[in-house]
Amino acid sequence: MNLQISIEKSKPCEADLMESGSVGIVKTRYYTFAHPPDEMTLESGRRLGPITLAYETYGRLNSTRSNAILIFHALSGDAHVAGRHHRTDPKPGWWDNMVGPGKAFDTDRYLIICANVIGGCSGSTGPSSIDPKTGKPYGLRFPMVTIKDMVRAQKELLDHLGISQLTAVAGGSMAGMQALQWAVTYPESAAFCIPIATAARQSPQNIAFHEVGRRAIMSDPNWRHGDYYGKEPPVDGLAIARMIGHITYLSDTTLRLKFGRRLQQNQKLSFSLEPEFQVESYIHHKGEAFTKRFDANSYLYISKAIDYFDISSGFGSLEAALRISKSKFLVISFTSDWLYPPSESEELVRALRAANKEVVYYEMPSTYGHDAFLVEGEKMSRIISYYLAHAQEEKLGDFQIGTQPLS
Amino acid sequence: MNLQISIEKSKPCEADLMESGSVGIVKTRYYTFAHPPDEMTLESGRRLGPITLAYETYGRLNSTRSNAILIFHALSGDAHVAGRHHRTDPKPGWWDNMVGPGKAFDTDRYLIICANVIGGCSGSTGPSSIDPKTGKPYGLRFPMVTIKDMVRAQKELLDHLGISQLTAVAGGSMAGMQALQWAVTYPESAAFCIPIATAARQSPQNIAFHEVGRRAIMSDPNWRHGDYYGKEPPVDGLAIARMIGHITYLSDTTLRLKFGRRLQQNQKLSFSLEPEFQVESYIHHKGEAFTKRFDANSYLYISKAIDYFDISSGFGSLEAALRISKSKFLVISFTSDWLYPPSESEELVRALRAANKEVVYYEMPSTYGHDAFLVEGEKMSRIISYYLAHAQEEKLGDFQIGTQPLS
Repeated sequence: MNLQISIEKSKPCEADLMESGSVGIVKTRYYTFAHPPDEMTLESGRRLGPITLAYETYGRLNSTRSNAILIFHALSGDAHVAGRHHRTDPKPGWWDNMVGPGKAFDTDRYLIICANVIGGCSGSTGPSSIDPKTGKPYGLRFPMVTIKDMVRAQKELLDHLGISQLTAVAGGSMAGMQALQWAVTYPESAAFCIPIATAARQSPQNIAFHEVGRRAIMSDPNWRHGDYYGKEPPVDGLAIARMIGHITYLSDTTLRLKFGRRLQQNQKLSFSLEPEFQVESYIHHKGEAFTKRFDANSYLYISKAIDYFDISSGFGSLEAALRISKSKFLVISFTSDWLYPPSESEELVRALRAANKEVVYYEMPSTYGHDAFLVEGEKMSRIISYYLAHAQEEKLGDFQIGTQPLS
Repeated sequence: MNLQISIEKSKPCEADLMESGSVGIVKTRYYTFAHPPDEMTLESGRRLGPITLAYETYGRLNSTRSNAILIFHALSGDAHVAGRHHRTDPKPGWWDNMVGPGKAFDTDRYLIICANVIGGCSGSTGPSSIDPKTGKPYGLRFPMVTIKDMVRAQKELLDHLGISQLTAVAGGSMAGMQALQWAVTYPESAAFCIPIATAARQSPQNIAFHEVGRRAIMSDPNWRHGDYYGKEPPVDGLAIARMIGHITYLSDTTLRLKFGRRLQQNQKLSFSLEPEFQVESYIHHKGEAFTKRFDANSYLYISKAIDYFDISSGFGSLEAALRISKSKFLVISFTSDWLYPPSESEELVRALRAANKEVVYYEMPSTYGHDAFLVEGEKMSRIISYYLAHAQEEKLGDFQIGTQPLS
C-alpha cells in the first residue's frame, strides 16, 4: 500500500522530456476513512464521515520514511500542486514552480504530499459531496469545519501512508495557517514548519472582506440556502466573492503596472455601465473563470474556516500555543502583501521567539501583493532550498543577512 | 434673491442654544436651471435638463460677495453639511465638526455653500428623478455624469447666487476631486483649493473595488436594469456595494481597535453562516442602513464619475492641467488612508509644485483610514483655520514645520 506513492515518478513520460524540472504526468488519488460509526468529531462537536481526501504525491519516500513534506493549499487551491494530469493539460499544478526535481521542494530528495481540504470541492468531502444518510449533496447540512479539522483529516491520510515523521509542513495563505496548526497539533511530527504570507490569526479586516463575499453568494437567489446542486448555481454571487478576493490578492502596484487606467483596447470612454477600464474586465474575467471550477458552498465553508483561525485559541496567547511545537520555523512574508502584511508575520515571529523556538524570518521584497506566494517561485526557492539543505545541521542565525530586520 | 442665503443664520433658535458652535436649524433649498431647450451638454455629449440642485448655505455673504467657500460632498454625502433640519433631528450634517461658528469653515467669517451633486439622490437631479420627457424616473436613461459635469452644475448655482469669486473650494475624497476640478475648470474663481484625502486621478485598485460594488447591484434581480422605482429596490446588491466601500474607508488599525476578533456579545462560536464576529455585524449594519437612505442607481452613476476622474485628462499631464489654475493649494492626506493613500496626495503635490503653484501639504497622522477626513475634525480644523487665516497675506513656507516631509 505504501509503496504506491512513488510509482508515478518512476515512469518517465513525454511531459518529463518536454518540461525540465517537471514532475511529469501525475494522478490524483483518494483515501476514505472515518466510516460510520467511527466518524471524525469536528471542533464544532458535530461528526463527519465517511471522509474522502483527494491527494497527490510527487517524488519517492526514502527507506526510513522520513523525507516527506506535506504541502497545504490555500482557499481556492486543490491537491494538484505540480505536474499535469494529461499530456494535453493546458496548465500544470498551482505550485509547479516550487515542486519538482531541483526545485525548492525537490522531488529528487523529498516525497511531496498535498491533499484537498475537507470542505473543498476538488475530490475531498465537502458540501457538494453526497451525504450517505440522504443520498443527496450535503449543502448546508455539511458541518462547519476549521483549520484544525482540516489538518486532523490530513493526519489520517499520513497515518494511512505510513508516514509518522515529516521533514516539513509548508504553505502560503490559508495553507500557512494549516502548517502552523500542524506544528501545534502534532508538535513532534514535523522537523520544519514553513508558513508563508500568512498570520497566526485572521484579522478583522480579512473577516470583513470574507463576509461580504459570503453575503454576495447567499444573496444570489440561485443559492437557494445551499441546495442548488443539479440546478443553476449562484454564479453571480460566487463571481462577486472572487472579485473581492482577487483585488485583495493583488497589490496596488501590480494593478498600476498591469492595467493603470487604460481603457479596453485603448478605446475612448463609452460612458456606460459596461466595464470600460481594463482592470474591470480583468476582475470580471477572474470572477467568471472561478465559477467554472469552484463550488459556492465550499467557498462559504472554507472562508469561514479561515476566519475562525486563531492559533492561540484555547491557549490564552500565541506564545503559549506555539511553545508546544517542536518544529523549527521559516516564516516568509512579502513587502507588498496587504492581506497578510509583514506586520502579521512579525507578530508570529515575535511569539515564536518568545516561546524559544528557532525561527528564521524573511520579509521578501515583492510588488505582487499576496499573490507573491504563488508567483515569486524563484525568490522563494532560493530561500527554501537553502533552508531545507542547511537547517537540519546548524543554527541558521546568519541566514537572515540581507533580510528586513524585525523591529 | 441673493440676500436669502443669509436669512437662516440670523434667527437664533433652540438648537443654537443647545449646541455651541452649531449653525443651528437649517433648510435645504433648490435651484432649477438648464430648462429645455437650453439643456446642459455633458462631457459624454448627452444633454441634461432641467437640472435641480439641492443646496444649503451657512453664514452670511459679505458686502463684496467674496467670502464664500464652496464645500463639495463625497460619494454618499449630500448638501446637508452642518446643523440640523429640525429640533429633533437625531444627527447633524455630515461635516458639522468642520462647519460652524469658530470652526475650520467659520460661519462667522464665511458663507459656506454645499450642493448635492447631479446624479445624486438627495434633492438634485439624478437617475431617481422624474424624466420630464416620460413622466417616469430616469433610471438608466439618465446620462452618465462626470466630476467636471458636477462642478459645472454647481457653477450655475453660484452664478444664480451672484457669487463669482470664492475664498475657497474644499472637500474630501470625491469632494476633493471636485475641488481640484473646480480649480482647473474655473481657474480664476477660487483663491484657495483644499483637496483632502483624495487623488488627482482614481487608481485602478479603487476602480476595481467600485466595479465589484456595481456588479453586486446589477446582479441583484430587483435591480431590473435600473427600473425598480415603485417596486422592491435592489437592497441586497446595494448593501454589498456599501459593505465593500465601508471596509475600504476604514483602516486595519481601526478594525483591530474597534472589533478585533471579538464575537457577538462575547459568545462562543456558533459554527454557522450567520455573522459571528462583531466586525461582521458592523458591516452588515452599515450596508443595510445605507440602503434606507441611498438610491442604487445613484451609487452606480456617482461611482462611475469617480472612476472617470483624471484631472490630467485632455492635458497630457497632471502638471499641464494644474498649471492653468490660479488657486493656492492646501493638500491634506492621512497616514492610514489606504483608499487614497498619502502617496497619491504626494503625486498631486509634486505636480502642483512642478506647475509652480503655491502649495502646502500636510500628511496628517491618523489611525482612522480614509474616514479620517470625516472624523479628524479637530486636527483638520487647526490646519485649515490657520491656513485660511494666514494664506491670504503671506507665503506659508514655514507652515509645513511638523508635517511629514514630501519625499
